Amino acid sequence: MHALAGLRAQLGQARPLVVCLTSPVAAPLTAQGLSALGAVPVMPGHSDDLPAAVARSDALLINLGSSDEARATLFRRAIAAARAAGRPWVLDPVGAGGGVWRTDLACELARMAPTIVKGNPAEIRALAGQTAQLKGVDSLDDVASALAAAEGLVAEPQGPQALVITGPKDACVGPQGTQWSQAGHPLAPRVVTMGCTLGAVCAAAMAVSSDSAAASGLLAAQSFKDAAKQAGARAAGLGSFISLFLDALDGAWLEEQGQGL
Amino acid sequence: MHALAGLRAQLGQARPLVVCLTSPVAAPLTAQGLSALGAVPVMPGHSDDLPAAVARSDALLINLGSSDEARATLFRRAIAAARAAGRPWVLDPVGAGGGVWRTDLACELARMAPTIVKGNPAEIRALAGQTAQLKGVDSLDDVASALAAAEGLVAEPQGPQALVITGPKDACVGPQGTQWSQAGHPLAPRVVTMGCTLGAVCAAAMAVSSDSAAASGLLAAQSFKDAAKQAGARAAGLGSFISLFLDALDGAWLEEQGQGL
Amino acid sequence: MHALAGLRAQLGQARPLVVCLTSPVAAPLTAQGLSALGAVPVMPGHSDDLPAAVARSDALLINLGSSDEARATLFRRAIAAARAAGRPWVLDPVGAGGGVWRTDLACELARMAPTIVKGNPAEIRALAGQTAQLKGVDSLDDVASALAAAEGLVAEPQGPQALVITGPKDACVGPQGTQWSQAGHPLAPRVVTMGCTLGAVCAAAMAVSSDSAAASGLLAAQSFKDAAKQAGARAAGLGSFISLFLDALDGAWLEEQGQGL
Repeated sequence: MHALAGLRAQLGQARPLVVCLTSPVAAPLTAQGLSALGAVPVMPGHSDDLPAAVARSDALLINLGSSDEARATLFRRAIAAARAAGRPWVLDPVGAGGGVWRTDLACELARMAPTIVKGNPAEIRALAGQTAQLKGVDSLDDVASALAAAEGLVAEPQGPQALVITGPKDACVGPQGTQWSQAGHPLAPRVVTMGCTLGAVCAAAMAVSSDSAAASGLLAAQSFKDAAKQAGARAAGLGSFISLFLDALDGAWLEEQGQGL
Repeated sequence: MHALAGLRAQLGQARPLVVCLTSPVAAPLTAQGLSALGAVPVMPGHSDDLPAAVARSDALLINLGSSDEARATLFRRAIAAARAAGRPWVLDPVGAGGGVWRTDLACELARMAPTIVKGNPAEIRALAGQTAQLKGVDSLDDVASALAAAEGLVAEPQGPQALVITGPKDACVGPQGTQWSQAGHPLAPRVVTMGCTLGAVCAAAMAVSSDSAAASGLLAAQSFKDAAKQAGARAAGLGSFISLFLDALDGAWLEEQGQGL
Repeated sequence: MHALAGLRAQLGQARPLVVCLTSPVAAPLTAQGLSALGAVPVMPGHSDDLPAAVARSDALLINLGSSDEARATLFRRAIAAARAAGRPWVLDPVGAGGGVWRTDLACELARMAPTIVKGNPAEIRALAGQTAQLKGVDSLDDVASALAAAEGLVAEPQGPQALVITGPKDACVGPQGTQWSQAGHPLAPRVVTMGCTLGAVCAAAMAVSSDSAAASGLLAAQSFKDAAKQAGARAAGLGSFISLFLDALDGAWLEEQGQGL
């Protein structure tokens, strides 16, 4: 649990502010997950307030879930503000490889120099123009099959600095090569929007990092695997797993009280 | 618990993809409920991508909660796509009998040949043009008072193939008559969006069924009663009930691990 | 736990209908929190149905989280309907003091004679035109620093009847002066949208009250502190706290069953 404890210590001290543009289905778990780790989520609405909100923040998450044209306009404004202010930003290309509109949007944003792209193998393949096999927004492609696509994206001039490809073990691909997380727990990928929450935590990790994007992505990914293992050891199914997972992210609180597990 | 175990086995094997157009308040529980049972939820946004998403899916849910004109346009496009592709679709006429706009929309969609309409007694009465007594989106009418309305709707040429009327015991009304679920647990109707989640599970049940719409609706309804009983036996209130209910839907996971209750 | 038990008894008997216009991230916890206490939440969408929905309801919540121009138009229509029908309404000025658009909107609505304004110290200061220190939508100002602002707002002709200023101990400011809640539990403010849920419960409390707005706000605030203490005594982190908090609000159910804690 070194990754999780380390990330929690960093986030709990710095309390980074993460602007999250995400879907209604993902918003609650994303917000509680960030807060459990010590980060501060904010989910702004009106476009006039958005550039200032991003400039005041420490990182930005763009999640394409349930998006439409109006939302895409917000995404572009927020990304421009993040880049102008030098803030790290994470793209979660939910559903890329599915609908044409969504795939085109994801490909466009992935070339706006995101700090990290966090996606499943099918989504990452779709960003590179490769065929992608999805069921809904879940990937039927395996992580290894997306490594070449990720390496190609990192090499593009306006491509991401690093990619986190989620699977049984997550791959973190940066200019220095690929590193792998350990395994988590089989209940984790069955929690809808668990991956969305990881995207937000990648943004939080970047906000407090003095390390590379790839290292921050790996820290976030491994922390989620650690928390999933901890939660899975006591869960009786998907419901209790969600609750125990948030408790595991929030170990800081017990530690502060001298009641650590 | 035969219904729940049976539905879980079917969904876990087929893993049907269910496109859900639902409200922000219902989206999280609906998504986790489907996933706990083995189905795969997807909640698309942009209208250009929607027809293809529906065509790729196994079933469609239309939930009228918190809807407006823009949303109604999405509903109509999705329904047209489902009918063109021969996919089952479920209408949850949330709030029919309340506002005039909502009631008119519900009545319109209920005549587009839905596979199943799942609603409370007041909503079903409103669809048939009868007076309805609601408190917010909850029914003050009882199930028996909506049976004639349901029978009339089933007899209409473009009406639903079957209706699930929710109450202490749910009634499933089809062309062959009415069947009743057993009772569940009094905490279940107090969980907001529990009925919305059942609507989505009716769609999932239809996707894997070789039986009639009425039989699929009854299977979904009885499964929810089974899970509610299981959860209610150990719950200390509404919070733990939600968590235990998702665990109960997700019995498959424990069974696979040889750790069944 | 006198406040919590008292509020629960009142709400469980009257079952007031509370129209909630709130953000996607806050909607699920707000809905379950109201229901756990015995109130009936409804979250309407289409603007044509909104005035009638408010007129049929017992109270209205306006929460500015994630809002935009379209949403602001709904807010103004709902407020007009509440005032025309003589319904109490609560303003939760989420993020006032942050973006200019949001702050202007909050200041405008706070002068439409809300029954209660529930906000953190920074938001209350912003409503009075004072400098506000926020991190996202969290306050860096303390409760005492916002008392003068609250007193000034209560004295305005179209200002709120009372304000609930949230902090380690909440202050309830009315024309008769200020009263304080007792302390709750440190996990409570870390649950994102806990304050949003309190805003909705202030509206529910007003709906059943024969007392002043300040007394109703204090009852709601103290009830949340009571529930937080009860939940915090057994929580292992943010996840289990949320579940236990809803159970604590829902003590009525156990009491009815003769299984009280």
